[in-house]
Amino acid sequence: MAGDERVLAGGASFIDFQTDPSRYRHWKLAVDGEVATLTMDVDENGGLFEGYQLKLNSYDLGVDIELADAVQRLRFEYPEVKVVILRSGKNRVFCAGANIRMLAGATHAHKVNFCKFTNETRNGFEDSSENSGQRFITVVNGTAAGGGYELALATDHIILADDGSAAVALPEVPLLAVLPGTGGLTRVVDKRKVRRDHADYFCTIEEGIKGKRAVQWRLVDEIVPNSKLEGRIAERAREFAAASKRNASGQGITLTALSRTMGENTIRYGSVSVEIDRAARLATISIAAPEGQPPAGIDGMIAQGASFWPLQVARELDDAILHLRINELQIAMLVFKSHGEPANVVAYDEFLESNKAHWLVNEVRQYWKRVLKRIDVTSRTLVALVEPGSCFAGTLAELVFAADRSYMLIGSRQGDNRPPPSLQLSALNFGAYPMSHGLTRLQCRFQANPSDLERARARIGEALDAEQAEALGLVTFALDDIDWDDEVRVFLEERASFSPDGLTGMEANLRFVGPETMESKIFSRLTAWQNWIFQRPNAVGEEGALRRYGTGERPQFDTTRV
Amino acid sequence: MAGDERVLAGGASFIDFQTDPSRYRHWKLAVDGEVATLTMDVDENGGLFEGYQLKLNSYDLGVDIELADAVQRLRFEYPEVKVVILRSGKNRVFCAGANIRMLAGATHAHKVNFCKFTNETRNGFEDSSENSGQRFITVVNGTAAGGGYELALATDHIILADDGSAAVALPEVPLLAVLPGTGGLTRVVDKRKVRRDHADYFCTIEEGIKGKRAVQWRLVDEIVPNSKLEGRIAERAREFAAASKRNASGQGITLTALSRTMGENTIRYGSVSVEIDRAARLATISIAAPEGQPPAGIDGMIAQGASFWPLQVARELDDAILHLRINELQIAMLVFKSHGEPANVVAYDEFLESNKAHWLVNEVRQYWKRVLKRIDVTSRTLVALVEPGSCFAGTLAELVFAADRSYMLIGSRQGDNRPPPSLQLSALNFGAYPMSHGLTRLQCRFQANPSDLERARARIGEALDAEQAEALGLVTFALDDIDWDDEVRVFLEERASFSPDGLTGMEANLRFVGPETMESKIFSRLTAWQNWIFQRPNAVGEEGALRRYGTGERPQFDTTRV
Repeated sequence: MAGDERVLAGGASFIDFQTDPSRYRHWKLAVDGEVATLTMDVDENGGLFEGYQLKLNSYDLGVDIELADAVQRLRFEYPEVKVVILRSGKNRVFCAGANIRMLAGATHAHKVNFCKFTNETRNGFEDSSENSGQRFITVVNGTAAGGGYELALATDHIILADDGSAAVALPEVPLLAVLPGTGGLTRVVDKRKVRRDHADYFCTIEEGIKGKRAVQWRLVDEIVPNSKLEGRIAERAREFAAASKRNASGQGITLTALSRTMGENTIRYGSVSVEIDRAARLATISIAAPEGQPPAGIDGMIAQGASFWPLQVARELDDAILHLRINELQIAMLVFKSHGEPANVVAYDEFLESNKAHWLVNEVRQYWKRVLKRIDVTSRTLVALVEPGSCFAGTLAELVFAADRSYMLIGSRQGDNRPPPSLQLSALNFGAYPMSHGLTRLQCRFQANPSDLERARARIGEALDAEQAEALGLVTFALDDIDWDDEVRVFLEERASFSPDGLTGMEANLRFVGPETMESKIFSRLTAWQNWIFQRPNAVGEEGALRRYGTGERPQFDTTRV
Repeated sequence: MAGDERVLAGGASFIDFQTDPSRYRHWKLAVDGEVATLTMDVDENGGLFEGYQLKLNSYDLGVDIELADAVQRLRFEYPEVKVVILRSGKNRVFCAGANIRMLAGATHAHKVNFCKFTNETRNGFEDSSENSGQRFITVVNGTAAGGGYELALATDHIILADDGSAAVALPEVPLLAVLPGTGGLTRVVDKRKVRRDHADYFCTIEEGIKGKRAVQWRLVDEIVPNSKLEGRIAERAREFAAASKRNASGQGITLTALSRTMGENTIRYGSVSVEIDRAARLATISIAAPEGQPPAGIDGMIAQGASFWPLQVARELDDAILHLRINELQIAMLVFKSHGEPANVVAYDEFLESNKAHWLVNEVRQYWKRVLKRIDVTSRTLVALVEPGSCFAGTLAELVFAADRSYMLIGSRQGDNRPPPSLQLSALNFGAYPMSHGLTRLQCRFQANPSDLERARARIGEALDAEQAEALGLVTFALDDIDWDDEVRVFLEERASFSPDGLTGMEANLRFVGPETMESKIFSRLTAWQNWIFQRPNAVGEEGALRRYGTGERPQFDTTRV
């Protein structure tokens, strides 16, 4: 079975999620007024790991890190952009999907993490379209196969060249014995509403579908002869721009490089720090409150740029989570702590709430939403420790509600002259940050008695002590100084002793109470089945389809239907 | 890894889903007026396979087959029963859950099929409560652990003895490194609305929760001292009976033994037959239309009893599906065919529709709904072939809509003097048989244009030929005689050549378009994660928790979090 760790290319010691357009190897970002063009032109020799070439615009995680960066920058740096054209820089090939040799040689954990990140990136297209008015149009100039078509599926409009050969395809099942797992199966039927038996046919043919049938079956929105293609793209871009609800203007904020210092067991950002205890298998993520009050108004926020505290913390936290997910696979638990003046956190929340109509404030809020969603689908036990000196207020309190368990100290500690901890709610806990299934974390929490939600809302702005927070159902356990050390230590030790897989499955079920959306279905129904298949010898065994692909040998299947 | 086939006990050559109370080894069914009592008293030596003992009221598939039979009989045979008391026949033990040695030694396919059937049985409790007014009360007199507590979770009301030791527990994650996968994780948060952090705590402690906290955390409905237990049970039974909406009266129908003849490659029932082609890896399930018209009224239906055609076919089809699922693991495809007079099928549908207020007609319809749901979650490719002489009308047409693909012949075949096939809709296609996620199969089909549903509804009662059916979107492909043989043959051959796992995952995604319900979440989010875990060495490897349980040796875990 696949499993040996690959070697990162170029002597890299870890996978870095930070990049910027000057360093892109696979994408070109060009902006012309309201229209941005994202051109995929993958550098065959630019793989993240050694041992494979990224032929035919196939991609690996490195390619997707650039894409995610570009989509993020478009939202913050280009207020004027209302339409993003996604297209290929190669002739007669749109994108061949995830690189098969990369997948075949990847560990199970890498496959799963790769799919999770690429799913988040594609969900990001839809989030941008819905919440920032940047609409996405895909131009399929050749073959869009597997992950290539899944890229297109995440956009608002798909134009297929009508040249007798350009086609869309999801050939994973017949060719590779895995699923179109980057949202493909779900989006085909749930988003594009392709009839399920048509989808069954489409997903079992290698060559895909082109021409009129692609439109009739709703797989693409239109087919256009090559001679008219550029004109049609420009026309659609104008239409989508005109219909966009983006109301941004003025300057964007440049997403400058993060301040980040990586040590053996630490990562220090400006406001976030990570301490890694490998023996205990835990990483402590600490967030510092802002040192002062928020800027007086929008101009002040723009002047602060990427150092505007909520934006800076969101970026740092996002990077920390992604880093820990993929570079620290032995870490079982993420422990959230905070320190600083809660009043300052609350003041920033008030700024974000009173200025929410401004496009850039909206982007900051939407980004926090996405970072918190990323935490929700992170397969590590999430713990919040609310201790003296902490500042879990408003937006930061979402980390407490995202946690699988939270502990809050009653009173102070002996010999510690900091005040007892408080937890504080703000308006942002009541709608700004829905989870992927559509509920806020507090709605999730108060399924039994929705009146508890109103009871909590009535306490917005109060500094709640541990017993109050526990009584309101906002923390799991309130403990006094005498019990704290033992209870928390035993919990963390015991948790680290459990099967990592059992915990992953348990947490993925308990965290998402109630409804499902297309996005949450992608992370549950689709992803969980794909992860199962990623363990099955028919896909990943020595004789499985993923390993045999391209060798000229046919895969050997255990024909048992399970 | 676990994988060797176990040997069936008592020299049995296959697993039989047919039983009746006279043969029960593990359950006692007693009816007293409006109240039935189902007592679990598992015979340690009555395991379905050799090699383990069913201690402490632990169960295997054989125990669950009896339970499913009892719940089914209660609905059809006991119109007067409004309340079912589920309790244990053992002292101080309610049920220890699925037998661990059975699970540890089971093949992956058996684990998955075992969980699927037990999930269907528990969903059946809820279906009976909601749609037949038979409310379920569980009396937990001792430990209800794992699958034991999951049994209770599927009922309407849980009474826990308050004796200082009786407790409910989901110790799977800490003890066995698997999930409480028979609905446990889902029902704890989605049905009982236990707060997710409380659920996290509860699902990671071996000893479970008893007494007041069990009530405060919503894990049970009430705790009652042993001295008052019998009185309280009687009181609750009266209350639930008084509130029941069951409006059945008169005689029930005895579910007499099926007429069934098993051959090497065939199963023949009264109206259903199965032909197994092992080389082609397909099973053809043929359903015969009724020979005549339905009875004139309710009395006639009761007089026919279990031979009332819709009931007989539902029972035969149910048995055939269950048999193929667990005893014929190499079969890749189920091909549905039908033969006989469509007008007779339609006449029965009209009977079921015009008499739907009658409790027994309701039971027949509800049962068909469950059989069709069972087909929806069957991990085999489902195919419908609509050929001359067939009778896919109304209820039987649901098999066409349940299929992953359907083919319908245009016109007749050369040398075949039967009339061209027709497809016919009835009122029952528009609401009687919702899938587990709440949509009808036609709603699923017409997600793109709900007006197509109305267009189809307007054609109820018409004999639609292949081209009409295709134009209405009711079949996948209409083919003429010239193309039929090649197209169908190539499809079936190709399908059989694909990875069984890839198909399972693909079908499980494409079949369930749109919303999810608690029931469908159990079959997607929960089951898919459990199936993943059932492949992970941390659970099922030689050093995994499931294999090591009870050996005195601690499991060895790969600590990578995936």
